[in-house]
Amino acid sequence: MSIEERLTALENDVKCLKDYAEITKIIATYGPLADTAEGEEGRQKVGDLFTEDGVYDLGKDWVGKGHAGVGALLADQNHLDLMANGSAHIMSLPVIGVEGDRASAVSYSRVYRHNGGQFVIWRVSANHWEFVRENGTWKVAVRTNRLLDGSADSKALLRRVNMPKLV
Amino acid sequence: MSIEERLTALENDVKCLKDYAEITKIIATYGPLADTAEGEEGRQKVGDLFTEDGVYDLGKDWVGKGHAGVGALLADQNHLDLMANGSAHIMSLPVIGVEGDRASAVSYSRVYRHNGGQFVIWRVSANHWEFVRENGTWKVAVRTNRLLDGSADSKALLRRVNMPKLV
Amino acid sequence: MSIEERLTALENDVKCLKDYAEITKIIATYGPLADTAEGEEGRQKVGDLFTEDGVYDLGKDWVGKGHAGVGALLADQNHLDLMANGSAHIMSLPVIGVEGDRASAVSYSRVYRHNGGQFVIWRVSANHWEFVRENGTWKVAVRTNRLLDGSADSKALLRRVNMPKLV
Repeated sequence: MSIEERLTALENDVKCLKDYAEITKIIATYGPLADTAEGEEGRQKVGDLFTEDGVYDLGKDWVGKGHAGVGALLADQNHLDLMANGSAHIMSLPVIGVEGDRASAVSYSRVYRHNGGQFVIWRVSANHWEFVRENGTWKVAVRTNRLLDGSADSKALLRRVNMPKLV
Repeated sequence: MSIEERLTALENDVKCLKDYAEITKIIATYGPLADTAEGEEGRQKVGDLFTEDGVYDLGKDWVGKGHAGVGALLADQNHLDLMANGSAHIMSLPVIGVEGDRASAVSYSRVYRHNGGQFVIWRVSANHWEFVRENGTWKVAVRTNRLLDGSADSKALLRRVNMPKLV
Repeated sequence: MSIEERLTALENDVKCLKDYAEITKIIATYGPLADTAEGEEGRQKVGDLFTEDGVYDLGKDWVGKGHAGVGALLADQNHLDLMANGSAHIMSLPVIGVEGDRASAVSYSRVYRHNGGQFVIWRVSANHWEFVRENGTWKVAVRTNRLLDGSADSKALLRRVNMPKLV
């Protein structure tokens, strides 16, 4: 291969590896922000992970749209109680696929709550994430989360791991 | 360094980083495939992560050999019940070592089962993975899994984290 | 861009990606070493992850300083009992920031203990890590760990996820 061809191949590979690292970082950042989103500033930081019209969909009556809508999920009394007592929103190792300025990922998440000196597992969920690159920064366009209670919905999210193109 | 030397150094590093990302992806893909392997097609997808004669070794009477053998582990009634009620096979951040077309990894895994509205931890295990590159694609040659019950066997797997060459 | 500029840009990006992989590896290695540190050799391997004067700070009366001090934490009877019965120190996907020869990370950790045939979650904690590069090798300078019991301390660690520069 010519020097030009080798440089171009390297640039493509490195771009892909950087996308993979940046998207992994967003997923890993969600928990620490969500577990400390006690005020308006904290909720904005979670909202800022999403696009302006981003959606966080946790099921029929539990959907946040846009920065304000995502923030409202975190201002819910149940989430405030979780944070007050101690909580951990932990994401698993994601499977990520990138195509140009769009990307998707499948991961598990768990919410642990501290309760009377002990930790209990409150939720174990399947997650499907859609990302878009806006002005050079990856943002969450849609995050869909379903409790792993055996439902067809939750399994459909996990099955999206069979993506056409993967890093 | 000459341009040739700099290109060669970059190509070696990028190859190593891609191997690391691809092997991480295989490990992260196992869970979503295993938790949805309700039919023959789903079981084949799990089998396809392994080489033709790949081995998934969970202990003396619980070993699958080859695609059909690995699929049979997932067709077991206990695994079918797990999936029906809701389950999550979650892998930890792996430690990966690569040498040419062979690689190995050490990780933890947990199996959560949904049971009467609550999630319980069914298994926490040590895992040692051996990978080979076949026609440009990494495949699992051997996955060994042992319950972390204090046994010497399970600790021997974790101790393999001291690999000669690591990414 | 000239060939020189393109090579330099690639070298900077690849250096950053390698730092990210190496620091992730250290974090992922801690658990398998800690769960098998039954003798002096095992404790030394954990100590070697730290700098000569590295600190592992788990709270007021539970701090190890230097290789010997970190080793002493693992020689504590409670940790010996954990290992004897079966334990898993599992780290979450970290958020990592690198600036030259210094780096930091935020992650969660969980300690599972095997108890009478079942696994229980003993600790779920917030972690802040500081790394320095010594002779080309990343080492832990300070690891701070706080139980996620709702305390301001534990949340302060998670809030450090808002780092100026991230991979």
